[in-house]
Amino acid sequence: MADPKSSFLNVYSILKSELLQDPAFEFSTDSRQWVERMLDYNVPGGKLNRGLSVIDSYKLLKDGQELNDEEIFLASALGWCIEWLQAYFLVLDDIMDNSHTRRGHPCWFRVPKVGMIAPNDGVVLRNHIPRILKKHFRGKPYYVDLLDLFNEVEFQTASGQMIDLITTLEGEKDLSKYTLSLHRRIVQYKTAYYSFYLPVACALLMVGENLDNHTDVKNILVEMGTYFQVQDDYLDCFGAPETIGKIGTDIEDFKCSWLVVKALELSNEEQKKVLYENYGKPDPANVAKVKTLYNELNLEGAYADYESKSYEKLVTCIEGHPSKAVQGVLKSFWAKIYKRQK
Amino acid sequence: MADPKSSFLNVYSILKSELLQDPAFEFSTDSRQWVERMLDYNVPGGKLNRGLSVIDSYKLLKDGQELNDEEIFLASALGWCIEWLQAYFLVLDDIMDNSHTRRGHPCWFRVPKVGMIAPNDGVVLRNHIPRILKKHFRGKPYYVDLLDLFNEVEFQTASGQMIDLITTLEGEKDLSKYTLSLHRRIVQYKTAYYSFYLPVACALLMVGENLDNHTDVKNILVEMGTYFQVQDDYLDCFGAPETIGKIGTDIEDFKCSWLVVKALELSNEEQKKVLYENYGKPDPANVAKVKTLYNELNLEGAYADYESKSYEKLVTCIEGHPSKAVQGVLKSFWAKIYKRQK
Repeated sequence: MADPKSSFLNVYSILKSELLQDPAFEFSTDSRQWVERMLDYNVPGGKLNRGLSVIDSYKLLKDGQELNDEEIFLASALGWCIEWLQAYFLVLDDIMDNSHTRRGHPCWFRVPKVGMIAPNDGVVLRNHIPRILKKHFRGKPYYVDLLDLFNEVEFQTASGQMIDLITTLEGEKDLSKYTLSLHRRIVQYKTAYYSFYLPVACALLMVGENLDNHTDVKNILVEMGTYFQVQDDYLDCFGAPETIGKIGTDIEDFKCSWLVVKALELSNEEQKKVLYENYGKPDPANVAKVKTLYNELNLEGAYADYESKSYEKLVTCIEGHPSKAVQGVLKSFWAKIYKRQK
Repeated sequence: MADPKSSFLNVYSILKSELLQDPAFEFSTDSRQWVERMLDYNVPGGKLNRGLSVIDSYKLLKDGQELNDEEIFLASALGWCIEWLQAYFLVLDDIMDNSHTRRGHPCWFRVPKVGMIAPNDGVVLRNHIPRILKKHFRGKPYYVDLLDLFNEVEFQTASGQMIDLITTLEGEKDLSKYTLSLHRRIVQYKTAYYSFYLPVACALLMVGENLDNHTDVKNILVEMGTYFQVQDDYLDCFGAPETIGKIGTDIEDFKCSWLVVKALELSNEEQKKVLYENYGKPDPANVAKVKTLYNELNLEGAYADYESKSYEKLVTCIEGHPSKAVQGVLKSFWAKIYKRQK
């Protein structure tokens, strides 16, 4: 049997060629080539964790039963829908953040001749999701729930992105807006729903579950997603660059990171002044002052504390879940992220 | 009874306030204000023809029966979904075209402090459509068809926008790509589906019709939409600025206008050379040469010819339709656009 990742990538090729033959649009050679290049550039190049986790979750929910080829294909197709959704967000986010690179390559909008066609390419990526769903799930009893799910999660992600953008608005650098509650809302909406809840929700629909009966699963996964982002924020400053594969710039970039909101919470007036004067400035001297303060405030300790409290809370919640199969899904997510170093 | 437009605008206020209370997202005061301002700026300020035509079509399909308040509300809500869709496209198109004004005001992305938040605002607009549909249509037998319809039409519009963008790509001005068939495809996908077919399709779903049985209606409306855009292209050059309310710049802007593709078709080698040398340049002397050529080629005559042939074809098709109510809908659209001067 082929490894899971290569069989998953094989489904990508099938979905792509179906989209390039979509009867709802008359492609010309040029436009077909454009879409193909745009898909290959933006969709399959990530770690594919979100997509692959649909298949893993579905297997666990089927409780050891062997999946047949059609079931693997369908779970993979839903996994790819999440990867398409991610590609759509990233293409647009990179434009809005004026970023330079993504996954080690120039951002799509920076590729020659792409430029301001990129926003529409983002829209095309987004529109491929319902095309894939319609082609492969139209006859399924859970088709309408799948459409509702993707719609709701996209809405939440766009809303999270909105609060992130309006609070970190250029020219309005104002640390007083940064609080733990704002941080939680941004992370929950912008990242956790689509990265953590959506894959499991897809798998639950495939096994015939009604998502209204699983708000507890949603809450646990959103909590895990939040924990994951706090790790990300922590590693940006305290992780080893050789391990995380990049040099963090959250301090320079005035990011609403868990570290800065925690620091603000723990600071006295004098320390707050240091943050206000140095956070969000490109000069290494300013950055160094922020890092010194983070050490003074023992943010590593605060993080260890957050980590162990999250562990307690999540493990208790997971073990309280009535279904062993659902527990298995949640534990497998948790095992992948708890105490990660990158 | 209030006039139709003010009762339609009243439904806008209701939908807006529902969206600002949407339980799927925890608004803060700032983000709620942001969305409200963004909606008021972008959604209700157009001519509202697309939205209003859902209600008109629905009335005609109900064959004179009086509509009750709920029916009017629902038809209006669908009309607003089309206006929301339009607002989403316009916000993004203006960014991609680097436009300056829209409906007499600065484009949204040019409003102070909006800037590169605008692409996400476009996405938020788009995401409001399924929120409205879910809130008001989730229990209807045609709910899933409504989702499929909006998804398909958005896909077609984005695809049309894509071929428009990739053929008129900056730095690649190449008239040899401009043909009648390309023009037809751009117009059909980018404009006709969402402006002409979508309102009638919404009304058909509301009266319980299966859209698969109405491909003839779709074809007629797409044909009308194409005719409408050809008029637009014609008026851009030959319309009276005081009547159409703007000074056309399609020639300067290297637009794939019906006029230039028709001119290319009718030109000999020498005339083609004039087009290649003068089309798409900002200098009034170049523009004047193109206009002189248009007169030499008698494009006004070619347009009159196109107009009368379209009239023949469309009227024959409409009168061949088996349902008098559907004929009524198609004729009311046709009456609004045939031989318009603005």
